[in-house]
Amino acid sequence: MIIEELVERLLKGETIAAARLISLVENTDENEKIIKLISPYLGNAYIIGITGAPGVGKSTLTDKLVRELRQENKKVGVIAVDPTSPFSGGAILGDRIRLQKLATDEGVFIRSMASRGHLGGISSATSDAIKILDAYGCDYIFIETVGVGQSEIEVVKNVDTTLLVLIPGMGDEIQAIKAGVMEIADIFVVNKADKDGVERIMLEIEMLQNLGERKERMAPISKVIAKDNIGIEKLLQEIQNHKKYLLENDLFDTNRKKRLELEMKQIAHDKLLQKASSILQENYDLKQLIDDVYDKKTDVYSVVNNLIDKVVK
Amino acid sequence: MIIEELVERLLKGETIAAARLISLVENTDENEKIIKLISPYLGNAYIIGITGAPGVGKSTLTDKLVRELRQENKKVGVIAVDPTSPFSGGAILGDRIRLQKLATDEGVFIRSMASRGHLGGISSATSDAIKILDAYGCDYIFIETVGVGQSEIEVVKNVDTTLLVLIPGMGDEIQAIKAGVMEIADIFVVNKADKDGVERIMLEIEMLQNLGERKERMAPISKVIAKDNIGIEKLLQEIQNHKKYLLENDLFDTNRKKRLELEMKQIAHDKLLQKASSILQENYDLKQLIDDVYDKKTDVYSVVNNLIDKVVK
Repeated sequence: MIIEELVERLLKGETIAAARLISLVENTDENEKIIKLISPYLGNAYIIGITGAPGVGKSTLTDKLVRELRQENKKVGVIAVDPTSPFSGGAILGDRIRLQKLATDEGVFIRSMASRGHLGGISSATSDAIKILDAYGCDYIFIETVGVGQSEIEVVKNVDTTLLVLIPGMGDEIQAIKAGVMEIADIFVVNKADKDGVERIMLEIEMLQNLGERKERMAPISKVIAKDNIGIEKLLQEIQNHKKYLLENDLFDTNRKKRLELEMKQIAHDKLLQKASSILQENYDLKQLIDDVYDKKTDVYSVVNNLIDKVVK
Repeated sequence: MIIEELVERLLKGETIAAARLISLVENTDENEKIIKLISPYLGNAYIIGITGAPGVGKSTLTDKLVRELRQENKKVGVIAVDPTSPFSGGAILGDRIRLQKLATDEGVFIRSMASRGHLGGISSATSDAIKILDAYGCDYIFIETVGVGQSEIEVVKNVDTTLLVLIPGMGDEIQAIKAGVMEIADIFVVNKADKDGVERIMLEIEMLQNLGERKERMAPISKVIAKDNIGIEKLLQEIQNHKKYLLENDLFDTNRKKRLELEMKQIAHDKLLQKASSILQENYDLKQLIDDVYDKKTDVYSVVNNLIDKVVK
């Protein structure tokens, strides 16, 4: 099927077109063409990142948030970024199957993406998938990551609101993940809030917040028991509050433009290197140039400066 | 003092000139000029990397190797790459001071370099320092790293022979560091070979070697007790054997050319991005372009392709 036709069907809200287009941006270099075609239809979905260590109940939380939004008849997309393959591990797969039950619901689109093996990195693959679900007509898109490493931080750079999920009894983990991760939270979610240690973890989060840079807005802490559907409505309200805060403080557009700038720079960076490298490979005998430097007929910097003059205007 | 004069004094073997030039490549952007001036005088030093986990006795080993080479009246340079500052930690500082005693010897040049805070990364700073010591007239240059992380692997990409130092009783550590690190060893050095567990670690190294890819040459294992100067002469012989192996198998020049290629690519990469970014900043209103994409007047890829056409010939 040609891409133009797939995009047309995507814009009409056909699920199969969304799935096929995401596969295309994941596995081929058609992403440029696809993104160009859907660009006029972007910017309507609200994007929420859900991150936190394995075992804190991110999938269950996503599941409940999605169901709640379906009550309001919202169209929802979920992208679950798994460490390696979408079929890698027991717990992850189990969660995924549970979530998959939602998939019989026409108003929900669910997709697992492996965090490795993408041509342009997981961040750009996620960013493209978000755009496709946006054009598909989703009101909300959830990006759920497994773990809290560097690639998760990259992924949540694509979102409007980031939820960092924690559970009681993980004080040490907080210490371990705090560097660079606590700062990304727009809302802290303490899941399994019926377990011992809730007060302690709340206190620890507050302490870490007070230690950090003074901010305009303190990220609120939402207590939930996801498996029993407790606190979900209130958490959705907190997400709405954050959106309202962004809009009222002129941050909604500003943040999205910042993300756009980063995205453009990354694309420009990759394309520039690609183009320069192919120009050089076609026109210059690099092996000879290396031999010339090695034989002291010239030096590294003279060669490089000369090559760059040939490439750059 | 002007750089030309410093280089002239370096080529005459003046220690102070070597020290000042290394400071200049570390802290300023004069490295291009300096490397160009010394390029005709490079390629004479033999470069040895010494790496391994903290506490395995790398400094003591370096110290003894240097003393042995001084017996043969060789001129020796030592670059010790420390995790952060050269004055960061007790043990490291202690080792450094011990090594510093050698510094009253005119035939030895010792320098600590912090592994962070270099404009072009530690690998390029080390590479420049090696070149300066090469032009200074060193017969041997040792690069000693602390730890076995990614930046250490980067650093040893600059060397002819890599020693990976291990000690008995670190089986678990071997497991932990094996990925990507065991392969860099041209010679395994088991230090503290009077301790329990020597046979076991030798066996573990051999097992890991047999698990790995089949190689032309198996890296030998050298047992030493560095503090008592035992096994040092034999280790130097193994280094000579490795050099002989490289020369006889046409790998000496090939490896150096490969390193040169990597270095050129890195420099070209950095300069290209720098140049493109300054052209764009001077000639285009990036903020306006981002606004245009955000307002759907155009799309990311059209903007980027257009910009790249303006930059690249």
